[in-house]
Amino acid sequence: MKLTLGMIGGGPDSFIGAVHRKAAALDGHFDLVCGAFSSDPEKSRATGAALGLDPSRVYGSYDALFAAETSLDAIVIVTPNHVHFDPAKKALERGIHVILDKPMTFTLDEARELKSIVDRTGLAFVLTHTYAGYPMVMEARERVARGDIGTLRKVYVEYPQGWLSGFIENAGQKQASWRTDPTKSGAGGSVGDIGTHAAHLAEFVTGAHITHVNAMLNIVVPGRKLDDDASALLKFSNGATGVLAATQVAAGEENNLKLRVYGDKGGFEWSHTDPNTLLFKPIDAPVQILRTGSGYLSDAAKAYTRLPAGHPEGYIEAFANLYGAFAGAVRGALGPAPSAADGVRGMAFIEAMVRSSNSDQKWTEVTL
Amino acid sequence: MKLTLGMIGGGPDSFIGAVHRKAAALDGHFDLVCGAFSSDPEKSRATGAALGLDPSRVYGSYDALFAAETSLDAIVIVTPNHVHFDPAKKALERGIHVILDKPMTFTLDEARELKSIVDRTGLAFVLTHTYAGYPMVMEARERVARGDIGTLRKVYVEYPQGWLSGFIENAGQKQASWRTDPTKSGAGGSVGDIGTHAAHLAEFVTGAHITHVNAMLNIVVPGRKLDDDASALLKFSNGATGVLAATQVAAGEENNLKLRVYGDKGGFEWSHTDPNTLLFKPIDAPVQILRTGSGYLSDAAKAYTRLPAGHPEGYIEAFANLYGAFAGAVRGALGPAPSAADGVRGMAFIEAMVRSSNSDQKWTEVTL
Amino acid sequence: MKLTLGMIGGGPDSFIGAVHRKAAALDGHFDLVCGAFSSDPEKSRATGAALGLDPSRVYGSYDALFAAETSLDAIVIVTPNHVHFDPAKKALERGIHVILDKPMTFTLDEARELKSIVDRTGLAFVLTHTYAGYPMVMEARERVARGDIGTLRKVYVEYPQGWLSGFIENAGQKQASWRTDPTKSGAGGSVGDIGTHAAHLAEFVTGAHITHVNAMLNIVVPGRKLDDDASALLKFSNGATGVLAATQVAAGEENNLKLRVYGDKGGFEWSHTDPNTLLFKPIDAPVQILRTGSGYLSDAAKAYTRLPAGHPEGYIEAFANLYGAFAGAVRGALGPAPSAADGVRGMAFIEAMVRSSNSDQKWTEVTL
Amino acid sequence: MKLTLGMIGGGPDSFIGAVHRKAAALDGHFDLVCGAFSSDPEKSRATGAALGLDPSRVYGSYDALFAAETSLDAIVIVTPNHVHFDPAKKALERGIHVILDKPMTFTLDEARELKSIVDRTGLAFVLTHTYAGYPMVMEARERVARGDIGTLRKVYVEYPQGWLSGFIENAGQKQASWRTDPTKSGAGGSVGDIGTHAAHLAEFVTGAHITHVNAMLNIVVPGRKLDDDASALLKFSNGATGVLAATQVAAGEENNLKLRVYGDKGGFEWSHTDPNTLLFKPIDAPVQILRTGSGYLSDAAKAYTRLPAGHPEGYIEAFANLYGAFAGAVRGALGPAPSAADGVRGMAFIEAMVRSSNSDQKWTEVTL
Repeated sequence: MKLTLGMIGGGPDSFIGAVHRKAAALDGHFDLVCGAFSSDPEKSRATGAALGLDPSRVYGSYDALFAAETSLDAIVIVTPNHVHFDPAKKALERGIHVILDKPMTFTLDEARELKSIVDRTGLAFVLTHTYAGYPMVMEARERVARGDIGTLRKVYVEYPQGWLSGFIENAGQKQASWRTDPTKSGAGGSVGDIGTHAAHLAEFVTGAHITHVNAMLNIVVPGRKLDDDASALLKFSNGATGVLAATQVAAGEENNLKLRVYGDKGGFEWSHTDPNTLLFKPIDAPVQILRTGSGYLSDAAKAYTRLPAGHPEGYIEAFANLYGAFAGAVRGALGPAPSAADGVRGMAFIEAMVRSSNSDQKWTEVTL
Repeated sequence: MKLTLGMIGGGPDSFIGAVHRKAAALDGHFDLVCGAFSSDPEKSRATGAALGLDPSRVYGSYDALFAAETSLDAIVIVTPNHVHFDPAKKALERGIHVILDKPMTFTLDEARELKSIVDRTGLAFVLTHTYAGYPMVMEARERVARGDIGTLRKVYVEYPQGWLSGFIENAGQKQASWRTDPTKSGAGGSVGDIGTHAAHLAEFVTGAHITHVNAMLNIVVPGRKLDDDASALLKFSNGATGVLAATQVAAGEENNLKLRVYGDKGGFEWSHTDPNTLLFKPIDAPVQILRTGSGYLSDAAKAYTRLPAGHPEGYIEAFANLYGAFAGAVRGALGPAPSAADGVRGMAFIEAMVRSSNSDQKWTEVTL
Repeated sequence: MKLTLGMIGGGPDSFIGAVHRKAAALDGHFDLVCGAFSSDPEKSRATGAALGLDPSRVYGSYDALFAAETSLDAIVIVTPNHVHFDPAKKALERGIHVILDKPMTFTLDEARELKSIVDRTGLAFVLTHTYAGYPMVMEARERVARGDIGTLRKVYVEYPQGWLSGFIENAGQKQASWRTDPTKSGAGGSVGDIGTHAAHLAEFVTGAHITHVNAMLNIVVPGRKLDDDASALLKFSNGATGVLAATQVAAGEENNLKLRVYGDKGGFEWSHTDPNTLLFKPIDAPVQILRTGSGYLSDAAKAYTRLPAGHPEGYIEAFANLYGAFAGAVRGALGPAPSAADGVRGMAFIEAMVRSSNSDQKWTEVTL
Repeated sequence: MKLTLGMIGGGPDSFIGAVHRKAAALDGHFDLVCGAFSSDPEKSRATGAALGLDPSRVYGSYDALFAAETSLDAIVIVTPNHVHFDPAKKALERGIHVILDKPMTFTLDEARELKSIVDRTGLAFVLTHTYAGYPMVMEARERVARGDIGTLRKVYVEYPQGWLSGFIENAGQKQASWRTDPTKSGAGGSVGDIGTHAAHLAEFVTGAHITHVNAMLNIVVPGRKLDDDASALLKFSNGATGVLAATQVAAGEENNLKLRVYGDKGGFEWSHTDPNTLLFKPIDAPVQILRTGSGYLSDAAKAYTRLPAGHPEGYIEAFANLYGAFAGAVRGALGPAPSAADGVRGMAFIEAMVRSSNSDQKWTEVTL
């Protein structure tokens, strides 16, 4: 039987709301039955109608939703960052499983508190770090863990975008306006929006944690209120070091998150531009092109794949894999999906990056 | 409101059945409400149960389904080729819209008859030539039509696969066994299974029709009953010429359908390995990398895209675009999805390729 | 000690003359000491002066050169095709080793006679099928021979160019004017200019010979006198089949010769756009990216490489490898460079392609 | 007439000596007439003999060479870094033009002094930062200068290699042994060997200078004496910022120097793996693939190209372009080749990187 799902956020101006809905629908795990799609009741109603929902289950606020929906299995929260903590907390306290957009919260303190609630309630909680849902990211993680590249030495992760190259935040572009607004986005701009994806990907694949950052956050576009460009040198828990670059002013770039990791026996390279490929670079031997859907992959990667090799799966499928892991968690299975602990680390990363950028000292510790 | 959809075929051993279900679900146009998933009632029931369907609406035959389901909007038929014509005909005669897997039928005569029924009933009919659902294929079609490459001169289309490099048809691989069986697949093996995709793609993008073929069909793997390798020189209705190669014995290849077309002003290149990219090669100027989700694309391409540039969409999304076009057609909108006329041309192409391969004469006409 | 080299052709309008000179100089095997660079004595003198040659050793005709230069080691002939046979014959008859541009001669009969002279004199003779000089082409040849892809089944070779998309032959472009002129180029246009490269590459790598062709030659650009577009289905001596496409009207294309070969155990792919890479596609295992300069390559490939992996070598280096092989042959070493026998096969290929294109019969035999 | 050239270094164990010789020979600008190829007279003689030089002009030391060769036009110095300054100084003082391998000298002070000698003598001096010799690097420089990407904002440059992933310096690998030895290489290991290439490329293309570095230098392989891994955040003279990563322990990587620069109107991307391609990424328009040999390129790029588009030129050709610029400079023409001023900046960069890496402060100034 499908699990019942409600949505908070995801109204007419949302980008990610529709992605969540398609991802939840793709594999048939969830049935979207209700929503508070906007704090503007008219907009919420319009979205519910377009989705074919029962109008009586479409609400103008999440408090109204929680008051009325007493037997919901799960809730997805896709609001701007400053409206993550409160509805997530309320859902968990009502026994509703939560799948939440990243970054976890508005502040690190909120993240810590939310994690303690998750731990206390034992409910399923997934943070949608999308890229962890790609099968070849999973394959890289599995292979690093089993030693294919030996001892980890170097991590390079980059996330160049160009969509904020101009000052568009006052031009009616909803995505630009809230993501560059410190009252909605939090202390970090690019570092929170995409830097956390990069940091999570690096940690997810390597199993190592970022312990120290040496960061430069820039506001490149005049008039902007939050960083639109971030870079840092990194130290990892196992002694490896790395470089992270995340920018939203690389004019002409799309959304090309890319990770390269190297150990003493070889390296892996994964790029979001070609997500069904993982390059394995063994030392002194030909590079191997590992491909989604191939028989030689790990069970974990295969579980994230629907099609034979040569049939591209993309962003929505990766998202749907997180929904699959969430459904599994609701039903009691443990999976590798991004967790509340990852969410706290992400918020601590943002906080450390901001602190480092304001410091003359070279290294700043990431404090959980 | 969602349209109600029934499925014929798509049981436990099916590859394409699950793809259709995910594609139908992705954008919320259809609600799968019933099915005859297998001629083995036990298997049909198991599939229906796994999908969470009402057991009373899961049938052991399509005749039983048609007898009981009198208010169905649409049916999808995903059986082997020899079981296309009869259920499609019966559905149309009952006023049910049809979305049908390619190739259209078992024989060219069946295709002609089915097309006449479609024409007579005026019902929506879509043939799932998947690749016509990719946004950058649509973009190429739009740009060829508007003259970006001038007068069409050359068409190169290829579809190399390697999965039939060994004799696996008796090894319990359901896909291999029926596709290589002339009693289920029809007169063509590789030419029907993938050659028709290649031919359709070439015609869909160029707007020209293949009028003559000069073909070589081979059975490369000893013991096989149908061609596993096809190639042909082509003549098109507008005077252009071309080359088609489709093979299932290119060991080590996945599923890389690729089209290149050239006119007197430039060319286009599209490859299924990187489906969100279309290369535009204007004469005497830099090649341009056109990308899904970009603002400069045609409305038709944009209508087939869900995400901003840099967020890969894949095979299921392409399939879902055909479902979107089908939903539109059910509701009265005309769209560019593969039609019954395309289906007849596909069957005529198979028939001509087989005839040409058996002939000592160089050119064989494609007879509709 | 360097070998002394004279040049016939390669005057001011020549493209390939300068390439030969750079290739001969690169590795220090040859010292260009004299030349008859043009049948126009003024142009010949100007070229000689620009090259810093002794004016007394610069001639207005190759007959004058042969008369005066009695102790020359080797001659390179880079004239249009109709001026290949006579100077090559005269050189060999004077005991001078010959390196000759392809195709071998103007007619098949000339090629047969020239080969017999080569055989009789025992002198070194190399035909500059450039692509056979690339290290990764050599690697493919070695690996096919040692069985890495098992029994050869399919050969796809293509050579798309776009530079003759317009009618430029009367616009003072010397390259275009002679290559499209049947009195200078021979019976074939594109099939001779680039089709022979494609055919040679296929034979060189596979070790199999093309025995039958089923060809379509087209004059696409109105007013042109020779084919500017060629394609063919192929049969090979070992039972394999293939497809060849060579065109000079693929507007927007550069010079992307590409070969793919498949056996029952895997395939190889090589493309001139990325010549230092050879893709090895073993069945049921990851594709391997083999790279020039790597330790795991064959000795034959290593012998064609000057630099460590990651330091690109290109067209001139490939040409220089043929000069290296030629120098070796002059000194008595046998090597794998394109031979007089290859040249005869190339001319027989052109002749068969033309004959096939004019025939209604499907298959035409290649007659040596 | 060719210029006469002598060589210091480049004996049997040298990698770069042979590259210089081929590059000098390729376009016929120079005639190598003498050399002191090794401090071991036997090795020097053997190299001279293999090159076919007059034995009387092959020396056991550069002092002997300078004493005997009084009418030499130019000298190339390809010794390890600690033997750059003295022979360069002596050559210039004798009126011999100098082409010198990078980095310029052993210490920054030596570089400053050498530059003052170059300035005083007015002789031609070229530092072989190879990558500045690639035509598409030149094209990027031209286009940045003319404003194609607007105001420069971000610079990402990376140079990953893997060849020092193991401790090979005592294994008889001459390249590894001197490059990791602080008495021969200088204060920097990877930062001097490849970091300076990356820094020079960034400055060469952008026209901006690195003013501050925030660096991490690591010795990753136990027992090594110099850094084998370098990364830094950068500040540029025009207000742009950047990231530099250069490592020799990225196991599985070859030699993939890569530069990306972004302004407010677009970006450029160039990679040594595909050196004949430059990606131009205009904001809100398709990426353009600019290609060596194309008619639309700048005169400066065309001057660095020998072949039509689609005929790959590589590392030796890039090197030969620097030799062409050097020959031009000897003859009085000014060109864009890497200069003594660039060499001083390179040494100042190394010195600042080492200083920064040893500092707890975030930013360290580059002091010329």
